[in-house]
Amino acid sequence: MAKDRVVVGVIGCGIVGTGAVRLLLENHEWISQRVGVPVTLKRVVDVDWNRPREFSVPETLRGTDAEAAIADPEIDIIVEAIGGVGFARRVVELALSRGKSVVTPNKELMAKHGGDLLALAAEQGADLMFEGAVGGGIPLIKPLKESLAGDSIERIVGIVNGTTNYILTGMARENRDFGEALAAAQQLGYAEADPTADVEGFDSLYKIAILASIAFGSRVPVGEVYHEGITGVAAADIRYARQLGFSIKLLAIAALDNGALDIRVHPTFVPVEHPLANVNGVYNAVLVRGRQVQDVMFYGRGAGAGPTGTAVVGDVVDCARNLVQGAAGRVPCRCFRSLPLLPIDAVRCRNYVRMRVVDRPGVIGQIATCFGSHGVSLASVFQPEDEVGPALAEIVWITHEVREAQMKAALAQIRTLPEVKEIPSVIRLENAPA
Amino acid sequence: MAKDRVVVGVIGCGIVGTGAVRLLLENHEWISQRVGVPVTLKRVVDVDWNRPREFSVPETLRGTDAEAAIADPEIDIIVEAIGGVGFARRVVELALSRGKSVVTPNKELMAKHGGDLLALAAEQGADLMFEGAVGGGIPLIKPLKESLAGDSIERIVGIVNGTTNYILTGMARENRDFGEALAAAQQLGYAEADPTADVEGFDSLYKIAILASIAFGSRVPVGEVYHEGITGVAAADIRYARQLGFSIKLLAIAALDNGALDIRVHPTFVPVEHPLANVNGVYNAVLVRGRQVQDVMFYGRGAGAGPTGTAVVGDVVDCARNLVQGAAGRVPCRCFRSLPLLPIDAVRCRNYVRMRVVDRPGVIGQIATCFGSHGVSLASVFQPEDEVGPALAEIVWITHEVREAQMKAALAQIRTLPEVKEIPSVIRLENAPA
Repeated sequence: MAKDRVVVGVIGCGIVGTGAVRLLLENHEWISQRVGVPVTLKRVVDVDWNRPREFSVPETLRGTDAEAAIADPEIDIIVEAIGGVGFARRVVELALSRGKSVVTPNKELMAKHGGDLLALAAEQGADLMFEGAVGGGIPLIKPLKESLAGDSIERIVGIVNGTTNYILTGMARENRDFGEALAAAQQLGYAEADPTADVEGFDSLYKIAILASIAFGSRVPVGEVYHEGITGVAAADIRYARQLGFSIKLLAIAALDNGALDIRVHPTFVPVEHPLANVNGVYNAVLVRGRQVQDVMFYGRGAGAGPTGTAVVGDVVDCARNLVQGAAGRVPCRCFRSLPLLPIDAVRCRNYVRMRVVDRPGVIGQIATCFGSHGVSLASVFQPEDEVGPALAEIVWITHEVREAQMKAALAQIRTLPEVKEIPSVIRLENAPA
Repeated sequence: MAKDRVVVGVIGCGIVGTGAVRLLLENHEWISQRVGVPVTLKRVVDVDWNRPREFSVPETLRGTDAEAAIADPEIDIIVEAIGGVGFARRVVELALSRGKSVVTPNKELMAKHGGDLLALAAEQGADLMFEGAVGGGIPLIKPLKESLAGDSIERIVGIVNGTTNYILTGMARENRDFGEALAAAQQLGYAEADPTADVEGFDSLYKIAILASIAFGSRVPVGEVYHEGITGVAAADIRYARQLGFSIKLLAIAALDNGALDIRVHPTFVPVEHPLANVNGVYNAVLVRGRQVQDVMFYGRGAGAGPTGTAVVGDVVDCARNLVQGAAGRVPCRCFRSLPLLPIDAVRCRNYVRMRVVDRPGVIGQIATCFGSHGVSLASVFQPEDEVGPALAEIVWITHEVREAQMKAALAQIRTLPEVKEIPSVIRLENAPA
């Protein structure tokens, strides 16, 4: 059943779909040379052919009927570029059920339903590839599944959402609050009108769940993963971070901790010497630590028609090479175990805490004692000179590594002290790699 | 001819071979689960089983006869970890001739004889993989061949030699001259007793030739590529670079320039905001620019048993997956064209020039006029306050982009000026990505 040509259909012609179509057409000859047989785009399906696009899809390729394209016996590979988990899911299921290879950059779909869809692909001996789901054009899924397959991955830490990184970079550079920086990002098209999925950390969560499932061979129950967005990060936190030698980044973290999955998304103090500290603007980067390979980092543009389109077409080439060899399903899902999630209360971190207290001698000692009585060991305390109000002082603490549960207990008691007026920020801290 | 088990033989048990053996044994179960069938190490061949190793190879696996291992009909995949282009070449040829898949991290072999060896592999329908040849454990070859296969690669710029990067980092941090920094690197085992291959740029040359051949689909005549090492870089150059906002790195560069291959290795002024400027010590990083994907960077440890061993075993997994599917030779060499090399004289660069001149009014004007008469446009001139000798001054020039031939002609004339005593350094300059 090896093929002497490969035919592609693209369903959904938004930003990423258009980017993939452009590459398939403009680089047709080059791609075909690499695959060894012609790789031809036959159909592009969308419901609206009147909206403006960066690239004009030839009229002969345009269609509006997704199911007809999937049913077309000439089409070997279906690209799903619709987004969301409704119709997109149905398109992927239908295509796989017909034994077609499927490429999707849909992170929400793969994070929530990847297990079922990959099982269906395996049953059908078909490929389901999703490089574009994480890190835009940055090769990540394939290196993890293949290049690093011989090593044991211990930890993945990444900046995987360009919108929040752009906002945090803007806050740091312009000394802006979150709201202002968000508005600026929206004006430039780097944040959506409803920014919830990005700024509340959902997008990062889907992506780290996908990477973790591959690295650790265990599917991740994405609904149960701890995630925290950047809406609570204040300009003051970023200012103090800089004074202390840190950047604030929204990190997505996945690690193995005594047989449990420590997976979480939250704003994080990152030391300036950390390779992720200087990843700015819309760039993404993912640092992978393997027992033997040690630290490897992947960096690039995490979104956009060109980058994500490149990832999609890279997967099309991969599927096509498999079809030419009769080797579809060559690298199936290998989630062969089911590891428990480490509850966030059991996670161990260093922490940054900013509080507003009555400006009176003895207060720092009182709070430090309270931390100590809960086993929270302090690394430093710092009283910035910024004015915060009459007879009020701001105090910034950095703790040593402590279990989240102890940290919470300490803060709960500290909040009851009459001298403590407010604890606006508690932000976890990431160490630099050794 | 699909396989239900895959058997591996390793020829050469030095640092990298030992690293690969360790991974194949320690991660046997995990690797087999990923491949879907058992992946078993049957034989490790070396001429000397008495030298000390980081990992003890079980006696039952040890052998001394490479040809016997290659001839063993049970062995499917041969790992060549001998190094050099003598016996290593013969081992690879013999194994491929028998239709076996071959994995080699041997950059010199692949740079010099990759064309012939890959043709032999294609003829035999066998795999010849070489991820470990460039960037140690950093996934580079596979992402270029597969993940980015849909895009047109325009440029690759990398720090691909850990020894020279360690030396340059040491020179910058300790304000040392080349000789002292080399001695320190040798003491720590980061540079070899005969450091020629590293410090003269040969190692980087082999690696960039390999990356270029994949990215541009054209074999690179490695003997004709311009390369310059770091032995001429002085502590003063690094000091002035820092004052001007640059790091000095040994860059390996490959780009397409109007249908010609612009490939070269030389010390380079890299602006501090460039992603490669902060790649320090033994780390390697490669920045790939594609037309659509834009800038993607890969970063990690460029050498060592763990990192390079991981790359080798990643390739073994890849070969094994192909064997299981009967798909060996799935991603063959695609050098389908033969592009000419751009002569170094036709390359356009900005330049840093350091000269020693008689400290007298009018000298700068005289030299600037000389530059101008050869069409060399100047971006800046700077006279450091460092003492260099009685009545002598050091002058540092940065030029705008200029063809190498013009630059040489200008410098030849400037050297004839009686006021110009010496031109100790001319170093090319790389712009930051847009």
